[in-house]
Amino acid sequence: MIRVTAWNEFRHEKVNEKVRAIYPDGIHHTIAAHLQQAGFAARTATLDEPDHGLSEAVLAETDVLTWWGHMAHHEVRDDIVERVFQRLMYGMGLIVLHSAHYSKIFRRLMGTTCNLKWREAAERERIWVIEPGHPIAEGLGDYFEIPHAEMYGERFDIPAPDTLVFISWFEGGEVFRSGCCYQRGRGRVFYFRPGHETFPIYHQPEVQRVIANAVRWAAPHTIAPTPVVNAKEPLEKIGK
Amino acid sequence: MIRVTAWNEFRHEKVNEKVRAIYPDGIHHTIAAHLQQAGFAARTATLDEPDHGLSEAVLAETDVLTWWGHMAHHEVRDDIVERVFQRLMYGMGLIVLHSAHYSKIFRRLMGTTCNLKWREAAERERIWVIEPGHPIAEGLGDYFEIPHAEMYGERFDIPAPDTLVFISWFEGGEVFRSGCCYQRGRGRVFYFRPGHETFPIYHQPEVQRVIANAVRWAAPHTIAPTPVVNAKEPLEKIGK
Amino acid sequence: MIRVTAWNEFRHEKVNEKVRAIYPDGIHHTIAAHLQQAGFAARTATLDEPDHGLSEAVLAETDVLTWWGHMAHHEVRDDIVERVFQRLMYGMGLIVLHSAHYSKIFRRLMGTTCNLKWREAAERERIWVIEPGHPIAEGLGDYFEIPHAEMYGERFDIPAPDTLVFISWFEGGEVFRSGCCYQRGRGRVFYFRPGHETFPIYHQPEVQRVIANAVRWAAPHTIAPTPVVNAKEPLEKIGK
Amino acid sequence: MIRVTAWNEFRHEKVNEKVRAIYPDGIHHTIAAHLQQAGFAARTATLDEPDHGLSEAVLAETDVLTWWGHMAHHEVRDDIVERVFQRLMYGMGLIVLHSAHYSKIFRRLMGTTCNLKWREAAERERIWVIEPGHPIAEGLGDYFEIPHAEMYGERFDIPAPDTLVFISWFEGGEVFRSGCCYQRGRGRVFYFRPGHETFPIYHQPEVQRVIANAVRWAAPHTIAPTPVVNAKEPLEKIGK
Repeated sequence: MIRVTAWNEFRHEKVNEKVRAIYPDGIHHTIAAHLQQAGFAARTATLDEPDHGLSEAVLAETDVLTWWGHMAHHEVRDDIVERVFQRLMYGMGLIVLHSAHYSKIFRRLMGTTCNLKWREAAERERIWVIEPGHPIAEGLGDYFEIPHAEMYGERFDIPAPDTLVFISWFEGGEVFRSGCCYQRGRGRVFYFRPGHETFPIYHQPEVQRVIANAVRWAAPHTIAPTPVVNAKEPLEKIGK
Repeated sequence: MIRVTAWNEFRHEKVNEKVRAIYPDGIHHTIAAHLQQAGFAARTATLDEPDHGLSEAVLAETDVLTWWGHMAHHEVRDDIVERVFQRLMYGMGLIVLHSAHYSKIFRRLMGTTCNLKWREAAERERIWVIEPGHPIAEGLGDYFEIPHAEMYGERFDIPAPDTLVFISWFEGGEVFRSGCCYQRGRGRVFYFRPGHETFPIYHQPEVQRVIANAVRWAAPHTIAPTPVVNAKEPLEKIGK
Repeated sequence: MIRVTAWNEFRHEKVNEKVRAIYPDGIHHTIAAHLQQAGFAARTATLDEPDHGLSEAVLAETDVLTWWGHMAHHEVRDDIVERVFQRLMYGMGLIVLHSAHYSKIFRRLMGTTCNLKWREAAERERIWVIEPGHPIAEGLGDYFEIPHAEMYGERFDIPAPDTLVFISWFEGGEVFRSGCCYQRGRGRVFYFRPGHETFPIYHQPEVQRVIANAVRWAAPHTIAPTPVVNAKEPLEKIGK
Repeated sequence: MIRVTAWNEFRHEKVNEKVRAIYPDGIHHTIAAHLQQAGFAARTATLDEPDHGLSEAVLAETDVLTWWGHMAHHEVRDDIVERVFQRLMYGMGLIVLHSAHYSKIFRRLMGTTCNLKWREAAERERIWVIEPGHPIAEGLGDYFEIPHAEMYGERFDIPAPDTLVFISWFEGGEVFRSGCCYQRGRGRVFYFRPGHETFPIYHQPEVQRVIANAVRWAAPHTIAPTPVVNAKEPLEKIGK
């Protein structure tokens, strides 16, 4: 059984009634509950727990980590980011959600600014499936819609994804690469755009479906490092 | 005219007679001299100059930066790495040479460990051209050889390159992705494997040819940022 | 000087007054005239000429071929398609325009159906620049608009492009990968979406700019084959 | 249970005693038998059966097709190639083995010549794992060896793979991209280099392991077309 840890900075839900109305126990609980129903072993972790809930022990039991953050990216400790990074290099999967495009861990993995255009206007988003044969698109039709979304627009300053699964159309006139697959080290990374905290997006079945598909895709077959090796003894004779 | 700055940590040449015999004025001088002959405006910069020779003014006049380092990666100041990174996001090109796979700037751009296998056994390397139509392969045949090389072997822990131009064969039994193209931000990055300090590799015409081709490929058409933009005013009416 | 041949099936212009009003001498003449002004050596070729205007001699003098077709794809002779294919494998560039997504040569190069969604409703298209650092995006801003366009929508059944330069937003609700770069053999291929025959799209400066940029990007450094080779004599001794 | 059809032209085994000694019932039987043991529903099909054993009914029950051919590529009927192609566009997976790089179906899917260098000298091949985190590399170490192999060398004239999983080192001095993943239509394609008919390569556990991994990776989640659609009715109002 794939073991998932759903991480959330869990701040908006405490300070904003509108957010609390949608996610009473926090976004992490909504995500973890759905993943449990989908057949995964899901736990949660949040910013204000010791080590942000991401001890070595927790990560050692995590196959895939989902990450939601927005207002407190800078409060995430650098040594914990490094710990997540190392685990990912060994094979752990990472699902990066919405505003976590600006999290320390995602920017570290991308090697770019991760800048983008944005607008809060509760506009319609239509997410088009670009690679219908990809496992992350399993069960979807040609597209699905988010009735009210925060807009993210191109140029999104990321490396070109290894596979681009979704492109969003926005009512206000922009487009966005909304589902982006990356291999980094032995780990797999999926960036998924939807998820603004003031809309009930993580209660939407298509969004839940994509997250479950992405967890399955990102789960590692092995957790092992790729070390520096002084290969002193050649495999073949040299200088014959 | 494309403006190049050839950066070198310039330490091996000071402490190791064998290196000094090959590069009396430093690797940077050999590279810059060849680039001048090839029609570029080339200057040099080294670790022990103020700001490592990479002031804002120097970077503002640099279209493409070449980088060689090995024993002193950790002495490169983080704020200078950040300055190079920002300039690259704006469009500057970067040619990363040999042991600079482990430089701060390359690891920052890759988002991986950049680990690899290695061996010093003065063995033969044969660099095969995988994409003969690519501008960086201009003027080369099916392959070229380096008579005595330090070996770098796979698994090289990098993101899959946007374009893989060269693969090396080593006498001792390994292979390596030796010519790797990346787009990062608006800047272009080329990793080129050859160049150990105890061999006269940067005097070899094929190696010089590749570096010149890579500089031409990496030169930007524009130097401009991709900022975060609050696109408050939609381009289309919302909520009709 | 880069030598371009602008190919056009040149039928709509003969049978449809509306098209003739926009392109009195044919789409090929508009494209070739603009490329000449941009500093290229441009000639034209059309379907109803002997060998469709694409003799061995013409192709031997062509660095980059631009291709527009729509109603008569099936009339293009298979042996001429093969001739263009072979020349492309050797290094010639190919710019595939709009409805030529369904041409024999493009489908042959893609190895997929090249199917898509489409609609003729004279709607607005906004073409977003996804890779501003790419040479094909030189001189463009964040986006440009086509006031009245035929819509092409995803899923566009192509292999994922090596580089995705543009994504289109359509007024009617769709998105499309509008600028797609491919390396095939030693040749470079660029698919560019705009160009319906009943709108004056090839008179628009941004469109002309992109085509000129693409021609420059696709021009080969060498015209040479990659043959099958019986490498009977090994480079290294076997069985030591 | 994933349904595999192992296709073989099955000619070498009939005319060459040396091959028959290694594969008494044909290469297809060896492959199918191993896949059955690995938990797949595997059947076989060969060139000299009616419709080459690939009727519409057989393909309709095939999730993944494996393909071995060498001396009789030209005898494969074009309409059967078209049938396989259509099924692949709908989602069927395809594993292309060794000399099938020159099969009609692979060349059709690649859109290139698929030319390469080759040599029969019974030399050692060492297959390096370039992407250890990829599902096709599951269960492998850093590399595995084939004691006696026919050499295939670069330049291999294929489109750059979506993911490059293996690179081969050859005793005689060449390298080769030996494990190449492609998405084409809704189907997944894996090219795997090893498998010359005069060596017992398909009896080797690492090779069997890779083929089983590849079948699992290439199995579709849905079999459905991506048609041309006249999307006459826009999703959003036009011309407001």
